[in-house]
Amino acid sequence: MHKFMDPASVALIGTPRRTGAGAFNNAEMMLRYGFRGRIYPVNPAGGDILGMKIHPALADIPEPVDLAVISVGRDRVAAAFEDCIRAGIRRVIVISQGFADADERGRRLQDQLAARARESGVRVMGPNTLGVVNNFRRFNTAFIDIPFPERFLPVSLVAQTGVLQVASRNLSWHDIGKAIDVGNACDLDIADALDYLADDPETKVIVVHMEGLKRGPAFLESAGRASRLKPVIVIKTGRSAAGAKAALSHSGSLVGEDDVYDAAFERAGVLRVRTGGQMRDAIHALAVLGEMEGPRLGVVTATGAGGIMAADTAEEHGLVFGKMPADLREKLRAGLPDWVHVTNPIDIWPIGMLGGRYEEAFRLSLAEMLKSPGIDGVLAVFIVSGSPLHGDLDLEQAVDRARREAGNLKPIAAWPYLDSAASVERFERIPGVACFDSIEQAVEGLSYGYRYHRLRRRGTPRPRSFPVDRARAGGLAAKGRRKGILLGQDALELLGCYGIPAARGIEAGSLSALVRAARAMKPPFVLKLAGRAFLHKSEWGGIVTGIGTLAGLKAARKGIAENVRAKDPGLRIEAFHLQEQAAGREILLGLKRDPVFGHVLACGQGGVYTEVFRDVSRDLVPVDGAAARAMLESLKIWPLLMGVRGEKGADTEAIVGAIERLSFFASENPDVAELDINPVLASSEGCVAVDARILWQ
Amino acid sequence: MHKFMDPASVALIGTPRRTGAGAFNNAEMMLRYGFRGRIYPVNPAGGDILGMKIHPALADIPEPVDLAVISVGRDRVAAAFEDCIRAGIRRVIVISQGFADADERGRRLQDQLAARARESGVRVMGPNTLGVVNNFRRFNTAFIDIPFPERFLPVSLVAQTGVLQVASRNLSWHDIGKAIDVGNACDLDIADALDYLADDPETKVIVVHMEGLKRGPAFLESAGRASRLKPVIVIKTGRSAAGAKAALSHSGSLVGEDDVYDAAFERAGVLRVRTGGQMRDAIHALAVLGEMEGPRLGVVTATGAGGIMAADTAEEHGLVFGKMPADLREKLRAGLPDWVHVTNPIDIWPIGMLGGRYEEAFRLSLAEMLKSPGIDGVLAVFIVSGSPLHGDLDLEQAVDRARREAGNLKPIAAWPYLDSAASVERFERIPGVACFDSIEQAVEGLSYGYRYHRLRRRGTPRPRSFPVDRARAGGLAAKGRRKGILLGQDALELLGCYGIPAARGIEAGSLSALVRAARAMKPPFVLKLAGRAFLHKSEWGGIVTGIGTLAGLKAARKGIAENVRAKDPGLRIEAFHLQEQAAGREILLGLKRDPVFGHVLACGQGGVYTEVFRDVSRDLVPVDGAAARAMLESLKIWPLLMGVRGEKGADTEAIVGAIERLSFFASENPDVAELDINPVLASSEGCVAVDARILWQ
Repeated sequence: MHKFMDPASVALIGTPRRTGAGAFNNAEMMLRYGFRGRIYPVNPAGGDILGMKIHPALADIPEPVDLAVISVGRDRVAAAFEDCIRAGIRRVIVISQGFADADERGRRLQDQLAARARESGVRVMGPNTLGVVNNFRRFNTAFIDIPFPERFLPVSLVAQTGVLQVASRNLSWHDIGKAIDVGNACDLDIADALDYLADDPETKVIVVHMEGLKRGPAFLESAGRASRLKPVIVIKTGRSAAGAKAALSHSGSLVGEDDVYDAAFERAGVLRVRTGGQMRDAIHALAVLGEMEGPRLGVVTATGAGGIMAADTAEEHGLVFGKMPADLREKLRAGLPDWVHVTNPIDIWPIGMLGGRYEEAFRLSLAEMLKSPGIDGVLAVFIVSGSPLHGDLDLEQAVDRARREAGNLKPIAAWPYLDSAASVERFERIPGVACFDSIEQAVEGLSYGYRYHRLRRRGTPRPRSFPVDRARAGGLAAKGRRKGILLGQDALELLGCYGIPAARGIEAGSLSALVRAARAMKPPFVLKLAGRAFLHKSEWGGIVTGIGTLAGLKAARKGIAENVRAKDPGLRIEAFHLQEQAAGREILLGLKRDPVFGHVLACGQGGVYTEVFRDVSRDLVPVDGAAARAMLESLKIWPLLMGVRGEKGADTEAIVGAIERLSFFASENPDVAELDINPVLASSEGCVAVDARILWQ
Repeated sequence: MHKFMDPASVALIGTPRRTGAGAFNNAEMMLRYGFRGRIYPVNPAGGDILGMKIHPALADIPEPVDLAVISVGRDRVAAAFEDCIRAGIRRVIVISQGFADADERGRRLQDQLAARARESGVRVMGPNTLGVVNNFRRFNTAFIDIPFPERFLPVSLVAQTGVLQVASRNLSWHDIGKAIDVGNACDLDIADALDYLADDPETKVIVVHMEGLKRGPAFLESAGRASRLKPVIVIKTGRSAAGAKAALSHSGSLVGEDDVYDAAFERAGVLRVRTGGQMRDAIHALAVLGEMEGPRLGVVTATGAGGIMAADTAEEHGLVFGKMPADLREKLRAGLPDWVHVTNPIDIWPIGMLGGRYEEAFRLSLAEMLKSPGIDGVLAVFIVSGSPLHGDLDLEQAVDRARREAGNLKPIAAWPYLDSAASVERFERIPGVACFDSIEQAVEGLSYGYRYHRLRRRGTPRPRSFPVDRARAGGLAAKGRRKGILLGQDALELLGCYGIPAARGIEAGSLSALVRAARAMKPPFVLKLAGRAFLHKSEWGGIVTGIGTLAGLKAARKGIAENVRAKDPGLRIEAFHLQEQAAGREILLGLKRDPVFGHVLACGQGGVYTEVFRDVSRDLVPVDGAAARAMLESLKIWPLLMGVRGEKGADTEAIVGAIERLSFFASENPDVAELDINPVLASSEGCVAVDARILWQ
């Protein structure tokens, strides 16, 4: 990857012979950008441009170049790539469009390219990419004339589009250092780019744009490693139904469920943002301010209204107001009327104006806030004015002195107003000060630092193993694989082999068999329709609860049979599912094999409200005990599970155990495509699965 | 109000004698701002400043001025105000702080000031205000040196703080025309400002900042009228618990529940935004683009990735992608390879580059989108470049021509990237084009136009009257007023007088009375503890359901009594509440008298989940049938009320009727402070109230 970003020599295959306005000549753009390596344009027509000889073929170039950039029509890419292999070139960027981003034929061409890359060991970036930008080396493979930025942050971008690198100055406060457009990612992908950037000393913050991933586990590993070394910000688009549809046709990405990406990003320790605006603020905050080591905010503001806005935003982003440092209040109050409030947020305007020492009060407040062990970061809101009448409102010295007095680098997020444009650069020269466009953005900026602080310190899952009744489990799984599905009692028994408790029950067709079974069971009973024909049993009138007697059982069986007959006289009932009736809160546990990330485990509110409130948390398998508990605690129904209004809570340890066992089941049964246990009834006595469904493939 | 904004002459009471750096001299600032009216500084010390005579007293001024601005210590404000009254001045701005924003004494001083204003008929703005800005007259009462903006939008701001007017250039893309800081609003308040701005021809868009309101009904009336004439944007801070606390100490506002403000804003037709960033974009969108007359978005983008971001944001903000205009696809495809996609969003880059007619394809797409009856507004995403190589990428002519060809003013929200800063002004010269900082902000900008379109066309509530059993209702209400509360059967009966159906029941203490009543009722029964001592009956073990026989009734009574004895042996049970057991989905109906807006009606999910999912909608009384239905339809449990999985739905007309009757009850009982009916059981047979609680005062 390194020589993709910093080649000594580059061959440009398919460079137009025309230069100047409208030519989109990448050799010309590379020169204009100031690249100091050797550039070899290649075009069968030969000739020369801009003082460079155009080589008719790769073979004519006097050295084996570090990197080739191909921009020819899609049908000529394969031949050009073979030329590169023959010429001993090890790295190729394919700019050309019309591959998996276009149609079936394009997808086949791309697959062939990827196969040749694997066979030859030549690494390919693209197709459908703008390539790379490395501002540390004035290197840019774009065919658009982008001005070289005089100033840029040590931030690197990996994207599935070139727009972000062209627009990087629109998407971060300052330009960024490096960008990699992986395009359709037929070979090199986001994970490869992350591996490079994680170890790159010129990169302090990584930003990832993605529409979807193919290699989920590779991403988890690369991003997981990178995020322990430096902040990794990700913007994943296509999160809405409409957006996912558009993503599919744009880069031909496999698009897993967006909620699953949330779980994956959490696991990988990367910080997700949702909009271009948030991305800009997150880049700025993490590159300039870095981490915030706790949630406690101090606010020094020239406007009381600003303190209120800060409070609203802090609450929404998981920050709280820290305590006023011990003697700061007394120091500020000296000489002021009684009625002046001095709390955090500190409204410095009346203090400064009435006391006639605005700058000193501001400096003192900021310094003490920074020094205080009870404050993790500071929001500073103040006027900056270019007016000759307001030299005394200028706080550059005050902020600088406060920073020195404090002797630490706790983050200061600022909203300078009135003449802010002129002042941002001055204030940002002070270490650990970043200016934002609004109070809310400044607070949100600090919250990114706190989120990263927690993500970097996250634990690694330590899943447990459990004893399994392997003989019985093997038989049931084989049956499931054969039929494609296990339902009801079969499914519950297979889960039982892994220690997931179920309500006692049997399946039988005849009344005599049901009665025989019932004699050995404890009433009240539930009788349900069984079998694939009746997936939505309640729609068939196929569930009777509270059966107390054998006569009741008989009546229930008859009633269900009549309900089915009324709906579809030709349908035969194969069997009924008789269970001891359980009680408790309805929860659901589930598994789904995501095409990108593998098994995803879900737990949430079960029963009829599942689809209404979507109170479900998800995590990637393996899930350990701590993660299982965190999943439960993040549910809105968590307080109900803990018990409300004098009611006993549910045995949450039992649910945690069931989740861990389900995760273990998933890791032992990689071919299970989908599994629902709904409901699990959770009470103070434990939890029991009441119905389940397992799908293979 | 008009002469507050456009006075011919102003007296400045308490103007410092010092001028220049650090003096905060408002006479000096007014001169520098370019005010062309007559300025009379007043200070007992006399002398002169900046060529103006300082008058020792108001009485020395040779004319009765249009406006006085008082900025003296809080204890001298009353005397200065009396001087104004004596001098025949009709309008006063009180800049001074230290009133309701400070302490109890300040609040008293403010009340006295308000009382004198009422008595004298002199109108007061403030205290604790920066006053007004009117850029159409170069008039600004701030004591801060704010540069006069050369260009500003016809947008006016009303705020409870001066920060927004000082920072207005930071909070909107361009400066704004007028600003009014009502401060503590002891006399003139937001409603007065809205009345003025609604009819002000120089105001096209109104922006309101508030921390809280005192006169809710006046605001509803003024904002309701204004919002039918022009867009009214509101940012209400203090929406979080922390923010509400801060607001209380900042401007001493009464702070009602934030959810109630949402209902009030909806009723008044004002468009709420939550952050400074949203405020900026909403101002810009509504001032430049105006309304969008439907939700159907067309997208023309130079980047496919941008189309995906647009799709995500559109879905979040209630916009959808419109259909491609009929023949546009064919026109664009001409001469292109088969594999180029042409759908909405239109990815213009491959079309333009491969076809060699980027500008033409863009113009054509934009024009046809604007002309199409299936598209209500367009998002345009394109590169702007200052490079001499890319004159052909410049779309100013294309956008301008498309606008002319379309012959309409449908909004165009643009995200120009690469060299956007230089280009915004050029593009915004084209009518109905606004540029935003990101794709998401551009789409959100369009959504404000669509939200305003719907708000402006909203209906007026037409509440119905219902027959009432007045004799019985009067007696029960008198009892409630006397005791402060009505519970259980009493409360249900009072509601029954207004036609709200309840489960049949009685309250009685003795077993014999209960049995006698039960004989006349239909089992199964429910028996519950009654009385004030047992507000949370379930915590006392005070509810038994499913009682089928008189023996069961006896056992239930005994069981409950034992539960109570076990918890508190000394407590006497006054009565039991015996009801016919009803079935259905649990919903809740409620009333709360908000200190600002009066009675607020709530409906939502009842029972144990109420506090977990907070699935509640609110509206201000009166609520008519259409509003009641909208409240129900906005609930997450609405699909459950409609019936799922073969289950019959609830009789929603019956619930709508109950809501209308409850609204009528509220309007007839203005002294009811709080009322809960929880649960109401809704089934296909209708709905019945099962428990209720009504509080007076």
